[in-house]
Amino acid sequence: MKKLINDPESVVSEMVAGFVAAYPKKVKQVPGTNVVVRADAPVQGKVGIVSGGGSGHEPAHGGYVGKGMLDGAVAGEVFTSPTPDQVFEAIKAVDGGKGVLLVIKNYTGDVMNFEMAAELAEVEGIKVEKVIVNDDAAVENSTYTVGKRGIAGTVLVHKIAGALAETGATLEEVAAVANKVVANLSTMGMALSPSTIPAAGKPGFTIDENEMEIGTGIHGEPGIERSEIKTADEVADILLNKVVNQLHLEKNNEVAVMINGLGATPLMELYIVNNRVSSVLKEMDISVRETFIGEYMTSLEMAGCSITLLRLDQQLSELLDAQADTIAFKK
Amino acid sequence: MKKLINDPESVVSEMVAGFVAAYPKKVKQVPGTNVVVRADAPVQGKVGIVSGGGSGHEPAHGGYVGKGMLDGAVAGEVFTSPTPDQVFEAIKAVDGGKGVLLVIKNYTGDVMNFEMAAELAEVEGIKVEKVIVNDDAAVENSTYTVGKRGIAGTVLVHKIAGALAETGATLEEVAAVANKVVANLSTMGMALSPSTIPAAGKPGFTIDENEMEIGTGIHGEPGIERSEIKTADEVADILLNKVVNQLHLEKNNEVAVMINGLGATPLMELYIVNNRVSSVLKEMDISVRETFIGEYMTSLEMAGCSITLLRLDQQLSELLDAQADTIAFKK
Repeated sequence: MKKLINDPESVVSEMVAGFVAAYPKKVKQVPGTNVVVRADAPVQGKVGIVSGGGSGHEPAHGGYVGKGMLDGAVAGEVFTSPTPDQVFEAIKAVDGGKGVLLVIKNYTGDVMNFEMAAELAEVEGIKVEKVIVNDDAAVENSTYTVGKRGIAGTVLVHKIAGALAETGATLEEVAAVANKVVANLSTMGMALSPSTIPAAGKPGFTIDENEMEIGTGIHGEPGIERSEIKTADEVADILLNKVVNQLHLEKNNEVAVMINGLGATPLMELYIVNNRVSSVLKEMDISVRETFIGEYMTSLEMAGCSITLLRLDQQLSELLDAQADTIAFKK
Repeated sequence: MKKLINDPESVVSEMVAGFVAAYPKKVKQVPGTNVVVRADAPVQGKVGIVSGGGSGHEPAHGGYVGKGMLDGAVAGEVFTSPTPDQVFEAIKAVDGGKGVLLVIKNYTGDVMNFEMAAELAEVEGIKVEKVIVNDDAAVENSTYTVGKRGIAGTVLVHKIAGALAETGATLEEVAAVANKVVANLSTMGMALSPSTIPAAGKPGFTIDENEMEIGTGIHGEPGIERSEIKTADEVADILLNKVVNQLHLEKNNEVAVMINGLGATPLMELYIVNNRVSSVLKEMDISVRETFIGEYMTSLEMAGCSITLLRLDQQLSELLDAQADTIAFKK
């Protein structure tokens, strides 16, 4: 295992400490937890938004804490749901009197623990709504998941719900727009190589030197097809077709595109994938409002990528365009 | 070789096409070249700034084209200097009448080709100044280099020279501040694994499963020491000591810090490195104005990182803080 770490058991706490030390004007840590919140949290009169999940997906989710996106992020152990008490601490730290929206990637442990935290919060009189993100078009049910998994598209839920929350909207309105994003969001990924959880010390799966896997999850969960490595154009076509079909996209639809690197894939390769994606969408008369390329939701040092499309309407476009000032996402 | 590409011979042209397709409001391609420039280039009455070099270091340099940083970036073949005619095209495309500054990483081929381009430009009546960045503290002379290599710190040269250029400063003033950055800049890197040039098809060097190398260059050039993998804290101490000594930093100095990932190293590990860096600098009474953590100057899918420090004064601090609106660097 080749990692720049000190102790596999302390990677998350050291990561959070190093993160907060880097950005003291933007974020602060809730003492005694692995929760980071906006430096100005709680923001009075604004719905608070909390997301999180297992660590190993950086910059998700701490990188999206800031004006226009998340108020708080909870970091569980690597690829492990955060505990309800940590989520509860995040809710308390960001509640500015208008309630808190929880953005939960659809994994059984995350859903259960965020729900338990919501119950704890409601006992304390904090209104909580939940939105479950299940953008992964690859498979129904999987390791860790009943239903579809939540992956990179989650970042666009943060962006759009966060933008609406900044306008002073109610908790119900913010939850509604987050659910609208989920209903118009689809992602599909692929992997060329596995990642290694520090405490496990060995890769989560094996894949031959000439093989790739389509539909792999962000924790290395099985995908839908193993094959010899295909070209970037062929991979782009497979992922894009699935996502376009999932969303029933039609001529003259407008979308946002995210080409997400899973950790070890050079930006060069993501740009090459986008070269195909942008030209296929153009041929289909699907208009691209904005393209995001980079590492938004990783799987440690996994090589591979995912393609996300979000179908836009007037409201979603305006919220996508709104200002955001976080560490990993600025507009 | 596990890469998301179509043809090893066309990775750069496809990358540039995919990049420009993603960000049409921000950049445009000079037709028939691998040069990208600001969408509004040339900006009249502003010094133009051009950088570039071999590809494989993305987001460098195209990602830094935009308001407050570069006017143009030239992409050579992978790990190969761009040709003089391509650099010349970039100079012509960004000259707004106040001359053009070339920011050159110190590799023999880059220096030669950028200088030839400068001569071509001067024949056409375009004033050109050059600044050579040699921030790598690891070694004097190396593969491809006489003197010290130019690596991740180059991004801070772009940032600060770009900010001064936006104020309407003269070419001489912009060149002077770029040289001032170089005089106060030091970087040191390390590698855990090699990268593979697509056209070569195999890794540029080999390194044992339990080994790391200190001082490796961003093209896999040899460093100064191979050893068993050390902890993140030990690695941070080695790199930081070298950089602090190189700059003769003293108590109460103020610096900017960049923890740069070389391609395959998870952000989690970079945050863990920063946890050590920030605490050591604090113990030394060296004040950190700003910390940048991420992939700023990569080496394809190499695993490893570099640490950069830039000593600041009033002028450099103000220019560092100024607005920048590029694809990979926003303030």
